[in-house]
Amino acid sequence: MRKRLMEYGIQIGMLERGRQNSITDVPGVRVGHKTLVSNSPEVIRTGVTAIIPGDGDVYDAPVRGACSVINGFGKSIGLLQLEELGRIETPILLTNTLNTGLVSDALVEYTLSAHPACRSLNPVVGECNDSRLNQIERRSVSAADVGEALKAASGGPIQTGAVGSGTGMICFGYKGGIGTASRILNFDNTPFTIGALVLSNFGEAGDLTIKGRRIAPLVPGIPDDHLDGSIMIILGTDLPLSHRQLKRMSNRAAFGIARTGGRCGHTSGEIVIAFSTANRVPRSTKTAFVETRCLVENNNTMGPLFDGVIDCVEEAILDSLFTAESTTGKNGHTAHALPVEEMMKVYDLTSVTAR
Amino acid sequence: MRKRLMEYGIQIGMLERGRQNSITDVPGVRVGHKTLVSNSPEVIRTGVTAIIPGDGDVYDAPVRGACSVINGFGKSIGLLQLEELGRIETPILLTNTLNTGLVSDALVEYTLSAHPACRSLNPVVGECNDSRLNQIERRSVSAADVGEALKAASGGPIQTGAVGSGTGMICFGYKGGIGTASRILNFDNTPFTIGALVLSNFGEAGDLTIKGRRIAPLVPGIPDDHLDGSIMIILGTDLPLSHRQLKRMSNRAAFGIARTGGRCGHTSGEIVIAFSTANRVPRSTKTAFVETRCLVENNNTMGPLFDGVIDCVEEAILDSLFTAESTTGKNGHTAHALPVEEMMKVYDLTSVTAR
Amino acid sequence: MRKRLMEYGIQIGMLERGRQNSITDVPGVRVGHKTLVSNSPEVIRTGVTAIIPGDGDVYDAPVRGACSVINGFGKSIGLLQLEELGRIETPILLTNTLNTGLVSDALVEYTLSAHPACRSLNPVVGECNDSRLNQIERRSVSAADVGEALKAASGGPIQTGAVGSGTGMICFGYKGGIGTASRILNFDNTPFTIGALVLSNFGEAGDLTIKGRRIAPLVPGIPDDHLDGSIMIILGTDLPLSHRQLKRMSNRAAFGIARTGGRCGHTSGEIVIAFSTANRVPRSTKTAFVETRCLVENNNTMGPLFDGVIDCVEEAILDSLFTAESTTGKNGHTAHALPVEEMMKVYDLTSVTAR
Amino acid sequence: MRKRLMEYGIQIGMLERGRQNSITDVPGVRVGHKTLVSNSPEVIRTGVTAIIPGDGDVYDAPVRGACSVINGFGKSIGLLQLEELGRIETPILLTNTLNTGLVSDALVEYTLSAHPACRSLNPVVGECNDSRLNQIERRSVSAADVGEALKAASGGPIQTGAVGSGTGMICFGYKGGIGTASRILNFDNTPFTIGALVLSNFGEAGDLTIKGRRIAPLVPGIPDDHLDGSIMIILGTDLPLSHRQLKRMSNRAAFGIARTGGRCGHTSGEIVIAFSTANRVPRSTKTAFVETRCLVENNNTMGPLFDGVIDCVEEAILDSLFTAESTTGKNGHTAHALPVEEMMKVYDLTSVTAR
Repeated sequence: MRKRLMEYGIQIGMLERGRQNSITDVPGVRVGHKTLVSNSPEVIRTGVTAIIPGDGDVYDAPVRGACSVINGFGKSIGLLQLEELGRIETPILLTNTLNTGLVSDALVEYTLSAHPACRSLNPVVGECNDSRLNQIERRSVSAADVGEALKAASGGPIQTGAVGSGTGMICFGYKGGIGTASRILNFDNTPFTIGALVLSNFGEAGDLTIKGRRIAPLVPGIPDDHLDGSIMIILGTDLPLSHRQLKRMSNRAAFGIARTGGRCGHTSGEIVIAFSTANRVPRSTKTAFVETRCLVENNNTMGPLFDGVIDCVEEAILDSLFTAESTTGKNGHTAHALPVEEMMKVYDLTSVTAR
Repeated sequence: MRKRLMEYGIQIGMLERGRQNSITDVPGVRVGHKTLVSNSPEVIRTGVTAIIPGDGDVYDAPVRGACSVINGFGKSIGLLQLEELGRIETPILLTNTLNTGLVSDALVEYTLSAHPACRSLNPVVGECNDSRLNQIERRSVSAADVGEALKAASGGPIQTGAVGSGTGMICFGYKGGIGTASRILNFDNTPFTIGALVLSNFGEAGDLTIKGRRIAPLVPGIPDDHLDGSIMIILGTDLPLSHRQLKRMSNRAAFGIARTGGRCGHTSGEIVIAFSTANRVPRSTKTAFVETRCLVENNNTMGPLFDGVIDCVEEAILDSLFTAESTTGKNGHTAHALPVEEMMKVYDLTSVTAR
Repeated sequence: MRKRLMEYGIQIGMLERGRQNSITDVPGVRVGHKTLVSNSPEVIRTGVTAIIPGDGDVYDAPVRGACSVINGFGKSIGLLQLEELGRIETPILLTNTLNTGLVSDALVEYTLSAHPACRSLNPVVGECNDSRLNQIERRSVSAADVGEALKAASGGPIQTGAVGSGTGMICFGYKGGIGTASRILNFDNTPFTIGALVLSNFGEAGDLTIKGRRIAPLVPGIPDDHLDGSIMIILGTDLPLSHRQLKRMSNRAAFGIARTGGRCGHTSGEIVIAFSTANRVPRSTKTAFVETRCLVENNNTMGPLFDGVIDCVEEAILDSLFTAESTTGKNGHTAHALPVEEMMKVYDLTSVTAR
Repeated sequence: MRKRLMEYGIQIGMLERGRQNSITDVPGVRVGHKTLVSNSPEVIRTGVTAIIPGDGDVYDAPVRGACSVINGFGKSIGLLQLEELGRIETPILLTNTLNTGLVSDALVEYTLSAHPACRSLNPVVGECNDSRLNQIERRSVSAADVGEALKAASGGPIQTGAVGSGTGMICFGYKGGIGTASRILNFDNTPFTIGALVLSNFGEAGDLTIKGRRIAPLVPGIPDDHLDGSIMIILGTDLPLSHRQLKRMSNRAAFGIARTGGRCGHTSGEIVIAFSTANRVPRSTKTAFVETRCLVENNNTMGPLFDGVIDCVEEAILDSLFTAESTTGKNGHTAHALPVEEMMKVYDLTSVTAR
């Protein structure tokens, strides 16, 4: 089992990490995967990842949310209503590009089974394109797989790397996939958590940058790899943030991507979905008003918050590379794991300044 | 068979209608429906409508497109990439709220069957909520139904009213559904066509307004009808318009809705998708540039264009009401057809001024 | 002195009007005008209108705000930061198109004089084009005029019609300008107020529509009048609304415009600025959090709120027409007052249904 | 006179630089400055920079434009109409935060003097806050200064560093201000130019990053410097790009900022304005259509274009630091020039890989 970036003593930014250094450090947030690997009759390297953005049932008490589209060459589902209402009422599911419709459909079915009176639902589904390793055109994900990913969702440490929706993803020419990180913020003597989970599938070989060091390609890439890939970024926090604040927060994710060497290519779907578990409002209330806490907006509050976003996104991307195992897929092509030990012999990644 | 509004001598605006007074007057545009009606074991009143936004294969040569979200309480799929790239590469499908995922999935399958090398696709699917007449929670639409709607697509006169995705829709307390209209614009001595197709499912009983006349409820409504419904609007033209111009055009649809008495409620999904069949660019080109014609933007050009949009949307909504047959559905509830003859005895809709 | 629409017994919508039927019914909101009329050496028909969006000093404690751009052929200043931060920290000033820069500059100077430590400020200024009556190219507004409009600002009944920034405006071929209206909403047994103030300068002769009645031109228009005009809409409320809710609210203004016959022409600047006087946050706080009340979002709350917006905008536009006096300006051209008595003999505007 | 980054043999990216490595390499584009420096009665360190976005008169034949707002804590003027119409009809002026209104007003006056029949104009003005060195509250820029900046505008090599609007700006704790860069792109065997001009006033001391090397603070900073500054980015090209393509291009500027260590703070106004000199349409045309060339959108075209944007923005920011002279201003505080020779002894900036 591969080690995470933090286990090598590499710091990203100056903020304290959360207990698991994971989006699941945000209380109530759970993550589950369903990994699909088979070799015949087709070569399948794909899956589903479920992020449940709060404890209990998010249909009964939606969480607040917002999104940011860095480049919209992507097929995410559910962002329209998310922007209008500023809330998320289902788990967030990630999968491959050609299975978003099916996964969205399964999420409706799943919700209906628990809420038979439901007549309208806004499923939230994101995707990246794993067709370099996976026979994506077989569209192998089933409704049952979605159910398994949801069932597997739990707090605590989560699996990262070539797992769930990350099974077939490639990042900077290395095996990518799922990565996560978290940071602690203190306001008014109270600790809050911000966490990121990414599905990394972007970046050209040779562009990977770690703490400013541009890492020369250390492994052979996939032949004829011209895909200009994507990234899905999920940000969660227990800070009480409004829709506008969540949107401002999600806008900073681009800076985390850039710090790893990403350049936001033409065909990239770079999508950020942010949520807050605070101030959840039940689907039905007796009163017309609710009392809420809000974060005051100034440099003392937004500064650390934005730093936390940028650092979490940067580290989560690197985390996906550090933890993903080499994967051989379609046409016998192999996406090699980032050779961390070898890399650290060449590049001094621990002594450089904290940011 | 019910008559269309134009057959009653009612004018909407001052522009000339197209030959069929239909979105299919735009050369190459085709429309097909699959209607689902059954009474046991469930009461099903739903369906699929397919709009093919140009001749030939839109995957090989996408059409230019843009969208406008008047109120985003809606589950449309595909608008993200449409906004980024300004193009539509699949038919546009309309269905019920809880079947968007499945319909999107079927559209991917359909495209893959014709284009087996396709590895990324942006299906465009819109929806309204037909749960007042349809047991929507049964999610009755199948991939085969999608295929039939696509196969049925043709130019010329199209079916309107309680058909396809319009089968279970209600508008201003009357039976609504599919409506269409078109107008002719002349620029530089050349005629161009603009057309609208709507899926109407909005409006409170008593708000319906025709040529400024507020029509009192003439039929009993659905009991306990509190749904604050939606409308999907598809606009097509053969005018050479840029993405920005298509977006400006789609922004005017709200004024057409307002003229029928719509008030854009909290839970409405009011979505406009506009496309131009001009200046199609093949998926793959040998050169880095293409020569295109563009509409110059001034009051002489945009004035008639915007008038055409507003008039087409207004008439298409009314067309859905004039042509939809009474439909009895779930719980034995009936959405009554707009009693046109009776209404026209009470309200003088033909002598009032043209707009 | 001309009478307001409500004095003729005309109802717009079903909600109760506020005491003054004015945006100043929102507690703390104040309005002032500076009217500029002279005939030599130039023909000047222009001015400034100041809306102070809350009691006390809005620099010290900004109000929450949002905006909506229906058509962006306009030169409003300050909307960028309003959208990012969701707050307004200056009075809102309205003037003619070619004086926005100067008025913005004067607003900075005015704020600096009261807050000498200020080093950054986001002035909010809107405009319409009064060049049909005013020699706009003389850019007659001065910083002193801005000061006078601000000094004149008060609560209670406000002047409407051909006053302040409305002095030279034309609407549907009649004299337009400033109009206002308000409505009372009740939530949890507490009354709240929503109010609109408009600067009307749009609409083609013959398109004016009152309660669905299209009013034929009753006066001669300005010769060769091809201007496709604009409208500024300011919405205020004491309801505790978030930025997102204020934005949703401002999006409904288009429906109020449409009900008067407006069609949102190519060259129109149709801009809505909405603010809430609730939950004001001081510029500097000791804590990182504030406790706020928020309106729960459902059909029971947003329905009346959106109705209130649409009705206020519709009535405020008509109010500008009912109260503006005939004005002769540049080239001896006259924008005639809407001949209300004559109109009401022809059109029955009181017996028709409430909406 | 300080040397530019390129004179030290530092490469940014892999594309060829233009002849002057300046936005003025785009044919027709001109830049002029008016620098304001005085010490009594006030300490003034400010100015105006004019960018004329094409040859001839941009009022008569506007250029195509778009903008992107990375963080909207900024007071730029004119972006609303730029987004609606996709065109720029005045020079683009840059100045200090509290003088935008006056500069906008002067730009109207300037245009009117050449075009006395003009009755509507959309001036485009951007700003950063120079209050750390400049007594910004004195608002020292005059209309005459604007005129001088415009008069000084010329092609060829341009002044950079502490000049014009850059006179009082600070970047990463060093003296910042104006910087520029350009790149050559080849499509269909034809060379095109893309250029950037920045007004840099952002970044915390210690965050400056050059080619991945984080540069430790080499000079003392301004005491109590808590300003979380801004950047204005102007992008020009002679490539024939649509509004949507220009917007996509401007969205990439954030990645160039990030590569220099920028983190997009809460109070930053990070605004990008992009224009194309191709396909200019005269203000008045006899026909309803124009023939235009458009860039086909795929990885082969957009890839180099986006690389060019990112590289130009990165280098233009660094160029502002390399060329700006130390400047002592308000309160005797000094913003020190980046000590390039000293820095290059410590950091190897020439041997690292090209990107």
